[in-house]
Amino acid sequence: MFDYDLLGYLEGFVSEERKQRFVEILKNRTKYITVAIEDVFQLHNTSAILRSCDAFGIQELHVVEDRFGNRLDKNIAMGAEQWVDVHGYQTTAACMDALKQKGYQIIATTPHEDAQFLMDFNPKSPTALFFGTEKEGLSEEVMQKADGFLKIPMVGFSESLNVSVSAAIILQQVTQQIRSSDVSWQLSEMEFLEKRLDWTKKSIKNVEGIISRYHDH
Amino acid sequence: MFDYDLLGYLEGFVSEERKQRFVEILKNRTKYITVAIEDVFQLHNTSAILRSCDAFGIQELHVVEDRFGNRLDKNIAMGAEQWVDVHGYQTTAACMDALKQKGYQIIATTPHEDAQFLMDFNPKSPTALFFGTEKEGLSEEVMQKADGFLKIPMVGFSESLNVSVSAAIILQQVTQQIRSSDVSWQLSEMEFLEKRLDWTKKSIKNVEGIISRYHDH
Repeated sequence: MFDYDLLGYLEGFVSEERKQRFVEILKNRTKYITVAIEDVFQLHNTSAILRSCDAFGIQELHVVEDRFGNRLDKNIAMGAEQWVDVHGYQTTAACMDALKQKGYQIIATTPHEDAQFLMDFNPKSPTALFFGTEKEGLSEEVMQKADGFLKIPMVGFSESLNVSVSAAIILQQVTQQIRSSDVSWQLSEMEFLEKRLDWTKKSIKNVEGIISRYHDH
Repeated sequence: MFDYDLLGYLEGFVSEERKQRFVEILKNRTKYITVAIEDVFQLHNTSAILRSCDAFGIQELHVVEDRFGNRLDKNIAMGAEQWVDVHGYQTTAACMDALKQKGYQIIATTPHEDAQFLMDFNPKSPTALFFGTEKEGLSEEVMQKADGFLKIPMVGFSESLNVSVSAAIILQQVTQQIRSSDVSWQLSEMEFLEKRLDWTKKSIKNVEGIISRYHDH
């Protein structure tokens, strides 16, 4: 059971403006599209992708690297690490399995394969977009087990873009696509409430003390 | 008069594959959309924008900074500086005047203004897209003299993206838009031939010697 009273109590500690902003942002949040990054050693790129997830309303980011949280470039993420949920995995297989079990189709983003063009991609089921490294792209494992391939049409000499740039283009366009479609892309009521509580907690100093006083009274 | 014979002669020095590639890329090149960058002190960003211009077929980039060519980050531009024409200007006013005289409408890209959303932007006349700095955006001069404002819809906490990311998203979508419209976005026949000659020259070692032998024979 969701503790509506606790949420109401804690919301008393944040400004009306902030409360409204959380609700407004949560209305646009989605888990219908999620993002997975195989290589997070280029922290510059991963932090930029995290920022794009926030900007385009993607609530969850999956990274194949356990210690990711400690190594984020906070200057590039610009605070997005607070508002996007980052899930770490030891291996690519573990990441793909977890996402498939949650019902996601795995879409590999790649400039090289005979992939579907971005503007024609209109996901009809929950979709996890996988991004690889700039130089080597995605691992064989993802390429072999993916349910589909997606690419950005390019017409110049260069056949690739920086991975954070590719990701931003794809996330912007795919989220725009689902928002104007009739799929249920929004958070469920419970997901919405839980995030609202989570974000409210994150906005209060010494929230643990406040919560224990709430439970005592 | 265009020197068809010289082009034919010089094309004898490059591989058939490369010749075909030039023609293929030139068919997709456009000057209908052009890009102007006010601040090029962040070379990382400007070099990335140059690469995006190449990838999406934009032939000309305008930069308000005379010494730009010497200070490019070639690791990021990935060779795009050879294939995209970069024009330098001393001042923003000079840049805007030159573009207006060539018949371009000036479109300021900005997250903050009451701007048109990217997906609704369908240019009906030649368009110069202006990009500013990440922190301060475009100068007052551009904001006051622009013919229109354009923004990427964002729904997260962060109200801005890295400028090279914004530019890539906008260039990708605007060029996609014009390619599926009925405006004449392609290079003129003469522009096409001149670029073909220029690129062929750039692909030949000691081309000056070859050209003078051609003129002598």
